[in-house]
Amino acid sequence: MNPSETYDIVFHNGLIITANGNWDVHEKGVVCVSGGRIESVRGEAPGDELPRARKYIDAGAGIVMPGLVNTHSHAAMALFRGLADDLPLMSWLEDHMFKAEARWVNRQSVFDAARLSFAEMLLSGTTTCCDGYFFEGAVARAAQEAGIRAVLAQGVVDFSAPGVPDPRRNVSTAVDFVRAWQGKVSRIYPGIFCHSPYTCSEKTLRSAREAADEAGCLLQIHVAETKGEVAKIQEEKGGSPVAYLDSIGVLRDRTLAVHAVWASEEDTALLAAQGVGVSVTTESEMKLASGVAPIPGFLDAGLSVGLGTDGCASNNNQDMFQEMDFTAKLHKVHRLDPTVLHARSVLALATRDAAAAIGLGDEIGSIEVGKWADIITIDTKQPHWTPMYDPNSHLVYTARGSDVRNVVVDGTIVVENRRIRTMDVERVTEDVEGWSRKIRSSK
Amino acid sequence: MNPSETYDIVFHNGLIITANGNWDVHEKGVVCVSGGRIESVRGEAPGDELPRARKYIDAGAGIVMPGLVNTHSHAAMALFRGLADDLPLMSWLEDHMFKAEARWVNRQSVFDAARLSFAEMLLSGTTTCCDGYFFEGAVARAAQEAGIRAVLAQGVVDFSAPGVPDPRRNVSTAVDFVRAWQGKVSRIYPGIFCHSPYTCSEKTLRSAREAADEAGCLLQIHVAETKGEVAKIQEEKGGSPVAYLDSIGVLRDRTLAVHAVWASEEDTALLAAQGVGVSVTTESEMKLASGVAPIPGFLDAGLSVGLGTDGCASNNNQDMFQEMDFTAKLHKVHRLDPTVLHARSVLALATRDAAAAIGLGDEIGSIEVGKWADIITIDTKQPHWTPMYDPNSHLVYTARGSDVRNVVVDGTIVVENRRIRTMDVERVTEDVEGWSRKIRSSK
Repeated sequence: MNPSETYDIVFHNGLIITANGNWDVHEKGVVCVSGGRIESVRGEAPGDELPRARKYIDAGAGIVMPGLVNTHSHAAMALFRGLADDLPLMSWLEDHMFKAEARWVNRQSVFDAARLSFAEMLLSGTTTCCDGYFFEGAVARAAQEAGIRAVLAQGVVDFSAPGVPDPRRNVSTAVDFVRAWQGKVSRIYPGIFCHSPYTCSEKTLRSAREAADEAGCLLQIHVAETKGEVAKIQEEKGGSPVAYLDSIGVLRDRTLAVHAVWASEEDTALLAAQGVGVSVTTESEMKLASGVAPIPGFLDAGLSVGLGTDGCASNNNQDMFQEMDFTAKLHKVHRLDPTVLHARSVLALATRDAAAAIGLGDEIGSIEVGKWADIITIDTKQPHWTPMYDPNSHLVYTARGSDVRNVVVDGTIVVENRRIRTMDVERVTEDVEGWSRKIRSSK
Repeated sequence: MNPSETYDIVFHNGLIITANGNWDVHEKGVVCVSGGRIESVRGEAPGDELPRARKYIDAGAGIVMPGLVNTHSHAAMALFRGLADDLPLMSWLEDHMFKAEARWVNRQSVFDAARLSFAEMLLSGTTTCCDGYFFEGAVARAAQEAGIRAVLAQGVVDFSAPGVPDPRRNVSTAVDFVRAWQGKVSRIYPGIFCHSPYTCSEKTLRSAREAADEAGCLLQIHVAETKGEVAKIQEEKGGSPVAYLDSIGVLRDRTLAVHAVWASEEDTALLAAQGVGVSVTTESEMKLASGVAPIPGFLDAGLSVGLGTDGCASNNNQDMFQEMDFTAKLHKVHRLDPTVLHARSVLALATRDAAAAIGLGDEIGSIEVGKWADIITIDTKQPHWTPMYDPNSHLVYTARGSDVRNVVVDGTIVVENRRIRTMDVERVTEDVEGWSRKIRSSK
């Protein structure tokens, strides 16, 4: 901390939960930010004057913590939030989602719905999301405008998809997207998203892997989401989905395996050996009745695991605080062991571990000098936060997204005192309501 | 609707979810209230003038619905919110909660903490809670001041308890509480709460049953919460906890069985035959790893089932919207069937069914003419609510307590535009923070 320096932003009057490797906590701490990066982190010495800054963010005696990292979203699916609930997964996907997508997903609707999702995410403390969908260029424009950090991937399937009528162009369309966005905006990391081992052929998977390696970008893939998928791949390929993907060279580092609900111990060992990150979307996997992903086993095997909301057509919100709460409690009751996944370990799944799972472990996920300044403050002066014996516990078991007061991404204030500064929320919600009126009247 | 009448309150400009037997919904509906009761409910005819009223509540094009009914709380345990997490149930209860209670629970701390809980409940849309604890007279005073509707019961155990040093006076203390509060405040319904079949002797249970019958009040009891309890009672009494309670005459109508996680099909049939209500506290049962209560089986057997938050030392908040979300999703993944417990049925578990479970089915739980005016409005003009294809689905899968804007109990406005009118929230949270500083420094 340089006394003669004037910082861009200084956070003060809060309990700093760094989420660093030691999980250091500073009572009444100070975090200084300049040039988009964290320059210093410390507790406030009594009588200290605050460092000079162009902008002070007073945490109001609440919590200052790293922004949450949502490792799996389909932001544009906000268009279909709650359109078809309480249905079997395959009927939900094939009779409802694929049909609605074929008719209503276009460049403009994707942009409008993604912008809405980013508003929702930022307002509830998510500063980074890892997304996969079609017309992902429109998602990137929405992310650029919203001010969120985003790992974005163009979807690849072996049938006609929105914006990719000819499936022979699935991988090349994804490559075009990566080329268009790589290095363009520092907050936006383009990549490729193969939908799953049951919707992509071996040829497609190999080709996507090769393209991702060439570009040095993340390859995302849904895998082992349902019992049915495991049985199908076992029958067709003679191994589990994870083993099959490994056998054709798809699994290695810079890969994100999404769901992995039915990963066996052998699968887990394979994922760990190849340095694959895992994204678990607890609420979506509960609502669609996919199953309970073996997170404790993943962690024991040393895997990097992050939580994600999935698309809000199967959740139905994008509140990462809820995702933590569901994850902690689900595993306790599933194993009939209340000591499984204690609060701090779950908090890591939405911060430092999540960042590592999507390949950004050195860049974000904790409040540490040199990392990007992706920081949120939490208003704890509320009845449901009182009293507070252990802030980690409250962040997991008590908090909700609406407790977030300020959000900084990349050193820029995007939410101030609960108001989003990067867009006109009323307009953004109206735009999506306009689409929903058309969708509703066509049903 | 009498055109010449001036109502106390008229709700308008909202989608009315009545939660009546037909689950009628009125677009842009109008609800008229006078003398604490609902006088009329209807859709707004185009061009209609609003009825005359002393006060209008504009729902802002959001939702108007019955206030939520929390069928199991220990409001005063807010004192210990998050004090001891991620521990086995018996260690949590015996090493932490009972010890903390013996030292810190007194008339004043119970009053202060209950008042805080009622603030939290009202602000998140709960208009009725069903509570059990010690010094319940102080809880009743807090409820009276807060303006919440409350079924309150004095706790009974066979060992020294806060305020009841001599366990021989356990039932008589409860009877004294009932006598002091019966008929005193129309919103407050006193009763008796036997802790469990493993902390109360047969003699105590029979005596409490007799006293409850004599007073015509509700008898609450925790039952079949854990596998361990079932094994213990089976060994000592030769039957399941439910069968044992039935064999000694404890089960009949005006009884609330709380948890019933490990109720067998035979137990369920017994509960149904005796007209017992059931309270399930999903989040608490998940966090303490008690198990998954067989709600679909209860409903098939025709039982009245309500959700509850349990004390916020084991949850750790009292947000009934979250409780619905957890309940719907948990059962889907537990049964690997996404069609189980659809949104509307879960909404009933927090409104009309919950009211029936605690014996108030004719009084509250829906927006119907003649019932008490316990009504809330929900702000749906927010990103996480957009778009809205099905309001029932959004109330369960998307909503959170902070979406509640106005709360009326007994025809009185207790929360207006997110601000509680019956108490000084800052003072109330400070009072509990004061207790928590003492508790923390003594650890």
